[in-house]
Amino acid sequence: MIWERPLLSAMRSREQFLASLNDGREAYYRGQRVDSIAEHPVLRIAAEHAAKLYDVPRELRDPALGQDVSGYFVLPRSPAELLARHRLVYATTMACHGVFNISQAIGSDALAAMSVIAPKIDRKHATPYAARVEAYRRRVATEDLTLALAQTDMKGDRRRRPHEQPDPDMYVHVTDVRPEGIVVSGAKAHTTQAAVSDEIVVIPTRAMSEKDADFAVAFAVPAATKGLTFIVRPIEELEGNDQAILARSDYEFETITIFDQVFVPWERVFLCREHEFAGAVAIGFATYHRFTAVSYRAATANLYLGTASLVARTNGISEASHVRDKMLRLVLYKEVMRMSALTAAQFPLMDEGQAIPNPLYTNIGKLYSNQNFSGVLEALVDLSGGILATLPARSDFENPVEGPYLAKYLAAAEDGPRRTEVLRLAKELGVSSFAGYMMALMIHAEGSVEASKMAILRDYDLTEAETLVEGLLTPK
Amino acid sequence: MIWERPLLSAMRSREQFLASLNDGREAYYRGQRVDSIAEHPVLRIAAEHAAKLYDVPRELRDPALGQDVSGYFVLPRSPAELLARHRLVYATTMACHGVFNISQAIGSDALAAMSVIAPKIDRKHATPYAARVEAYRRRVATEDLTLALAQTDMKGDRRRRPHEQPDPDMYVHVTDVRPEGIVVSGAKAHTTQAAVSDEIVVIPTRAMSEKDADFAVAFAVPAATKGLTFIVRPIEELEGNDQAILARSDYEFETITIFDQVFVPWERVFLCREHEFAGAVAIGFATYHRFTAVSYRAATANLYLGTASLVARTNGISEASHVRDKMLRLVLYKEVMRMSALTAAQFPLMDEGQAIPNPLYTNIGKLYSNQNFSGVLEALVDLSGGILATLPARSDFENPVEGPYLAKYLAAAEDGPRRTEVLRLAKELGVSSFAGYMMALMIHAEGSVEASKMAILRDYDLTEAETLVEGLLTPK
Amino acid sequence: MIWERPLLSAMRSREQFLASLNDGREAYYRGQRVDSIAEHPVLRIAAEHAAKLYDVPRELRDPALGQDVSGYFVLPRSPAELLARHRLVYATTMACHGVFNISQAIGSDALAAMSVIAPKIDRKHATPYAARVEAYRRRVATEDLTLALAQTDMKGDRRRRPHEQPDPDMYVHVTDVRPEGIVVSGAKAHTTQAAVSDEIVVIPTRAMSEKDADFAVAFAVPAATKGLTFIVRPIEELEGNDQAILARSDYEFETITIFDQVFVPWERVFLCREHEFAGAVAIGFATYHRFTAVSYRAATANLYLGTASLVARTNGISEASHVRDKMLRLVLYKEVMRMSALTAAQFPLMDEGQAIPNPLYTNIGKLYSNQNFSGVLEALVDLSGGILATLPARSDFENPVEGPYLAKYLAAAEDGPRRTEVLRLAKELGVSSFAGYMMALMIHAEGSVEASKMAILRDYDLTEAETLVEGLLTPK
Amino acid sequence: MIWERPLLSAMRSREQFLASLNDGREAYYRGQRVDSIAEHPVLRIAAEHAAKLYDVPRELRDPALGQDVSGYFVLPRSPAELLARHRLVYATTMACHGVFNISQAIGSDALAAMSVIAPKIDRKHATPYAARVEAYRRRVATEDLTLALAQTDMKGDRRRRPHEQPDPDMYVHVTDVRPEGIVVSGAKAHTTQAAVSDEIVVIPTRAMSEKDADFAVAFAVPAATKGLTFIVRPIEELEGNDQAILARSDYEFETITIFDQVFVPWERVFLCREHEFAGAVAIGFATYHRFTAVSYRAATANLYLGTASLVARTNGISEASHVRDKMLRLVLYKEVMRMSALTAAQFPLMDEGQAIPNPLYTNIGKLYSNQNFSGVLEALVDLSGGILATLPARSDFENPVEGPYLAKYLAAAEDGPRRTEVLRLAKELGVSSFAGYMMALMIHAEGSVEASKMAILRDYDLTEAETLVEGLLTPK
Repeated sequence: MIWERPLLSAMRSREQFLASLNDGREAYYRGQRVDSIAEHPVLRIAAEHAAKLYDVPRELRDPALGQDVSGYFVLPRSPAELLARHRLVYATTMACHGVFNISQAIGSDALAAMSVIAPKIDRKHATPYAARVEAYRRRVATEDLTLALAQTDMKGDRRRRPHEQPDPDMYVHVTDVRPEGIVVSGAKAHTTQAAVSDEIVVIPTRAMSEKDADFAVAFAVPAATKGLTFIVRPIEELEGNDQAILARSDYEFETITIFDQVFVPWERVFLCREHEFAGAVAIGFATYHRFTAVSYRAATANLYLGTASLVARTNGISEASHVRDKMLRLVLYKEVMRMSALTAAQFPLMDEGQAIPNPLYTNIGKLYSNQNFSGVLEALVDLSGGILATLPARSDFENPVEGPYLAKYLAAAEDGPRRTEVLRLAKELGVSSFAGYMMALMIHAEGSVEASKMAILRDYDLTEAETLVEGLLTPK
Repeated sequence: MIWERPLLSAMRSREQFLASLNDGREAYYRGQRVDSIAEHPVLRIAAEHAAKLYDVPRELRDPALGQDVSGYFVLPRSPAELLARHRLVYATTMACHGVFNISQAIGSDALAAMSVIAPKIDRKHATPYAARVEAYRRRVATEDLTLALAQTDMKGDRRRRPHEQPDPDMYVHVTDVRPEGIVVSGAKAHTTQAAVSDEIVVIPTRAMSEKDADFAVAFAVPAATKGLTFIVRPIEELEGNDQAILARSDYEFETITIFDQVFVPWERVFLCREHEFAGAVAIGFATYHRFTAVSYRAATANLYLGTASLVARTNGISEASHVRDKMLRLVLYKEVMRMSALTAAQFPLMDEGQAIPNPLYTNIGKLYSNQNFSGVLEALVDLSGGILATLPARSDFENPVEGPYLAKYLAAAEDGPRRTEVLRLAKELGVSSFAGYMMALMIHAEGSVEASKMAILRDYDLTEAETLVEGLLTPK
Repeated sequence: MIWERPLLSAMRSREQFLASLNDGREAYYRGQRVDSIAEHPVLRIAAEHAAKLYDVPRELRDPALGQDVSGYFVLPRSPAELLARHRLVYATTMACHGVFNISQAIGSDALAAMSVIAPKIDRKHATPYAARVEAYRRRVATEDLTLALAQTDMKGDRRRRPHEQPDPDMYVHVTDVRPEGIVVSGAKAHTTQAAVSDEIVVIPTRAMSEKDADFAVAFAVPAATKGLTFIVRPIEELEGNDQAILARSDYEFETITIFDQVFVPWERVFLCREHEFAGAVAIGFATYHRFTAVSYRAATANLYLGTASLVARTNGISEASHVRDKMLRLVLYKEVMRMSALTAAQFPLMDEGQAIPNPLYTNIGKLYSNQNFSGVLEALVDLSGGILATLPARSDFENPVEGPYLAKYLAAAEDGPRRTEVLRLAKELGVSSFAGYMMALMIHAEGSVEASKMAILRDYDLTEAETLVEGLLTPK
Repeated sequence: MIWERPLLSAMRSREQFLASLNDGREAYYRGQRVDSIAEHPVLRIAAEHAAKLYDVPRELRDPALGQDVSGYFVLPRSPAELLARHRLVYATTMACHGVFNISQAIGSDALAAMSVIAPKIDRKHATPYAARVEAYRRRVATEDLTLALAQTDMKGDRRRRPHEQPDPDMYVHVTDVRPEGIVVSGAKAHTTQAAVSDEIVVIPTRAMSEKDADFAVAFAVPAATKGLTFIVRPIEELEGNDQAILARSDYEFETITIFDQVFVPWERVFLCREHEFAGAVAIGFATYHRFTAVSYRAATANLYLGTASLVARTNGISEASHVRDKMLRLVLYKEVMRMSALTAAQFPLMDEGQAIPNPLYTNIGKLYSNQNFSGVLEALVDLSGGILATLPARSDFENPVEGPYLAKYLAAAEDGPRRTEVLRLAKELGVSSFAGYMMALMIHAEGSVEASKMAILRDYDLTEAETLVEGLLTPK
């Protein structure tokens, strides 16, 4: 039995979720052990952001379970269901002020990928992975849990394969196999929202050779599992910006997630040394997750597009031709993402009865996003003006000497206080540490630029194009 | 007499400079009046940064004065002297860890421009501006003063000319003319280092029509002048980043500079209502100042280039082909700036015996800088990896539980602590609020992208190209 | 009655089509009247290219006619039917070696647009346009005709509106209204395949003001109509390239199409002075036609993609990292077009029961195509090597002295003769006048770059983005 | 004695040059042996283009010879002399309607490089190369000869080094060493103007390992040498364009140059198996020659800039904001080239007393040129309009029916005939096979894009940047 908690008769509430975080999980923030994340003055916001998921209408009938569960956990079987998934990711992001809510998205991306691959492993190795994955999926669906996903290993020396590393812990790996389960060690980087999730799902970061078999491991553990430590990144977009508007309301964090001789019972093990399937799991997950990425990024783009539009209006320059060119760049950023998601949903690969977002169109959107976000920042900064960098603090407006000066002098096409608030948000989005965080995210999250390029070229079928050309070279 | 202080027999020391700041100037920071900037816990760093100027070897013989003064104040008369100016700006920036030091650069840019234009005004209007500008130059040179330059007006409604603004104060303007001087009101945005400069030099922001004559005004006042108020921007790159390395050592700030019925004695007035020369002053200054810009930006680029190189090495990916492409981008950023400065210096315009940096090549470098800095950030972020966004805080390394994990797991081609420090600097430069500030600076400082484009096309001589083509169309 | 020919019981054959061209139409080529286009040594190829349409399986049931007709003429009523239209355009292009076949595509784009707009005009002006358009559509469908579309006027002075032109003929306009029809004069540029089409359909090039009412005219005439003159562009990609491979097989031409007091019977008039609908017709057509554009351009991209792949292989450089970057650029060119078409088809606007390709996604694809084709050429040229420019002629290979040298020295990863043929095609596609023609096409055909930008921004709905941001600025 | 012709007391005339071509050299064009190139109906133009060199004022005092010779052959010893060289290349190009004249440029680039490297070889191997190079230089200078330069080998399988090629002839190599000289075989690609040059200078294409020693060979031979065969590329920009304006006046051609057991006397051998210097010769030449490249490309850019300006004027769109953006792109293309040349000249490397153009700035300009020429074409095509592709032929204007229509309808801001001529030149430059040839040239001539990137990164000194950053990481 992998479920330890009672089945819920109804879907979970935000309060239930927040209460459940206080379970002894070992999390650190800025060098301090965090006792209760939901009450921590800073991390609380990330927890409440996660909890917003429970306010978003997500109910969808699960055909296997015969009951309504969160739509995230329903395995997509058709273009329409992939489209629904795209819309759910988009709607959740919009409900969180344009900030992605990963809490059920990333874990269900991994489950969807493993649901396709587990039967293949089972057929080859007579393993019971498909049943385990499905049992796990049913449990997290019926309990309406949140799942973090730990994939990217620390990697150590980038020039060496996992088994060549001087320190084997640089990739999470199996250190012991026991009758009742396995033991794993290592660490994963960039595990988003891990310390505010119910479960941590672990999958390989790349294809593995036979010598790398110990590194071919996938499993899930509760966040409070012994040996698991979360080191949360500093939240500079909030703590470092006393003028923050958005980060005061929504943000997510990443952890370095340490696995120090963590025991995993067999029911929770989904891959163990079947090295030839590690790549399929890694890539399968990446495809689903990049589909999620282009979906939420289209929503996030609204933050930049809407702010740029308000800035242009408050500056009184909406009609300038160079401003229109910048608005166009922002429109394209949103709509190319959306176009990518829509096409990927409508033209899926079908495998094991499941609909996989079209990898080609998914990765094209992902790559566009990687390569054009710096242009989004540039457009916003350019049309906002230098005042983005030199905007006075809120407290200046409250000083009786400075305040009236500032209200007077910051007016343009709208009055000073209104314009200042619009600019303050533009500053947060465009030139603060939030902007930097977004840039890192848009370039690295859900796989690097090079990974997207490789994914596009790897399976690209040149037959149609080459046949056309050969036909010209050797006419019938 | 415009000089109120005794002539110095030797050049000024940093201590003398810092001591002089405590003169009652009216500066505000985050809603608080700042009594002593040189002792303020945050602004102190900007003051000390300014003071570093006095440690840089700058002595140059002034032919008019017959004595050694700061090279910044020597009017360039030849390519060699412009080249020396480029090198002085570059060297000063390098001495300040790659952060521009504007303290004598920008003011002397304005003096150089006015030295060329004042004789032309005098010839037309029988005004005494040339002598006043020269007397002022001699004074600031012999006293080795620092000068802020206030040019960009608040502008109000961008669709209206100065005299059409509902509130005339949106552009600094003459409100009264008295026997002993003039009175001015208005406000200027983005006045760099104003509150830590000895003097504030004011020039028009654009060409002025006859109806805008009151707005055609240039002058200089000491920072402690009555009616002058400085509102300093919040220093988020320092206060918002408790991990800051660079901002802890060097930064500059901007102020909104309020002029509320400020009296200026005639000796300090350099333009007053001769509206047809306002554009020449604005553009003349812009040319000298953009020459300064491409000079310091070449130096600043070293921060990004050097950090990227160290990051690639510590990550162990220096030889990857995509990394080499990114390094190339960074090399080009530095060297196109430098190339622009070198060409502008070697092929100046000569006017009134003075060497003006070639406006075409100056603006080409400036535009390249505007349009390619987001690519610099992108390159650094891309080759650093997602760890830029998710790097733990310094305090995490000090915790006995987390510390050993982090030291172990953050190792790559170099050990964990070293790599972390390199990444921390990359984070500051690439994704922190410092990065955002730099992006705003690289796009807006020293004139907008559109201004650079206009400057290139405005005076471009198409004769050679058109003659060649007409020769083909109508062969002899 | 608008149909003068008997209804066909079966679809038309290529022979029937080619025979029908010999009807006295007035066409000129290089200063000579062309008597029989289907027998002209050069233009014959364009005629036979057009005729290839009749070899492509196109049958589709028309619900209104209750019979199978060319799928081009079936009005799309659903995403599935738009998708079928995309596939038909793509398949026809592939059947013509990657060269677009406009013969039924462009005319049916215009009919589809007018079918949506005519009812609206009729409701306002009590005109009979909807019935006329439908009757005309049924006729061309049942007779399986080819239609050229003349939209772009000569325009004269670009700074003046139609009625302001010194010479009113610069835009096609109504010069007389008679009981039995109207008389029109003027000229249209770039009418593709006009002289090898059965019919010429004319629509306005832009929105028209009340003063421009005479210029708001749409109609159709047979190619052999009195007063109609076609001036065909020189076919340099064929006549100027004795090594041509592709142009020897397929090309299309444009004409300047002169209307000199051409009479049009009322049955063939679809808009006459209802100026407020001119813009809707122009834009409605543009949307359908740009959907056709992204569909055929995806197919055309195969020429470049396939050739680049064969070149890389024959040069032995397929695995070089810079080559992979260029292949990626070519893959993106094809697939972004396709993605745009697929999304536009799946998410249409519905109007008057008809499915209009989503204008936003259509124009995004169109703009991508405009802005990235020069990069396609660059990629092909770059990976081919300088030999593209310096490849010897075919006759050199036949000379007994040169031939053996060339066969020996042009070998690389494949033998000399094979490699030379691959390079010859790369040369035609990349650096010949065909390449130039393609560049002009990819930038200007189906509307200019600026037109695509305008189309994206014109109707873009910013509400969702602005609402999100206003919600942050004024939290509930 | 290497000189076989009498010394000239005065500089050579164009007639003398043209007469000298009739010396029995073995050239082929389109499969035919060409007896007299100066009288060949097509190649004649390339010969006359070469001869224009003799009308350009080029006299410069050679300090070694103590007499005036062509400035091309004077070895530059200072920035001023490099600047003079830049201006000579630029002026010669302008005198040839913007088309490069390679006749003394490329050969003297090679001599300049070998003059620097020969003394180093001599010091190591006690060879007499320096004296031979100097003797050869004096001879070609005093006789005022033209020199082609053959560097790029055919290369065969790109994945193998020279000695690994199945056919050793894929790189020119030494096949025999005799008392009186050496024998060489192989072939070189892209030898510009070889068949209309007096001499063919041969240098290695790359660095050579010890096993490749036979391929490390440099020498010069007269064009009429036994065993030497020139296969001229087809001149499609002229023969394929009966409307050509520019190609009717000026063009250059390339040959595949076959060396079949060619004997070279020792006096003409400059490198023979000293493999470790092959790379230095290749790179040394590349640097001088890319300096020539950025110099002539700045001049060539005038063709595009001037034509674009005339087109914008004749179309009446000079003031449109998108047109100004395109003009800016063209201005930058010209001026970044010039800036690169000026900086490279002013800041040379000094070696063996000789001034070498700064390799960094030379290669930056070269790379800019490679990467931005497709944008030049795009800008010209975009602002010209679709009429570039669809412009009628000249003969259409002469037909009594068509002519008046065309004159009337092609008018815009200027009359029809004038506008048509401007557009015809724009068509030649923008979308004809000339445009394609230029694109291949701008990407591949004087070294590939990858070669420029490598040249920039290879010797780039990161010390300054890394030191700055290390100073921040480990503060004193």
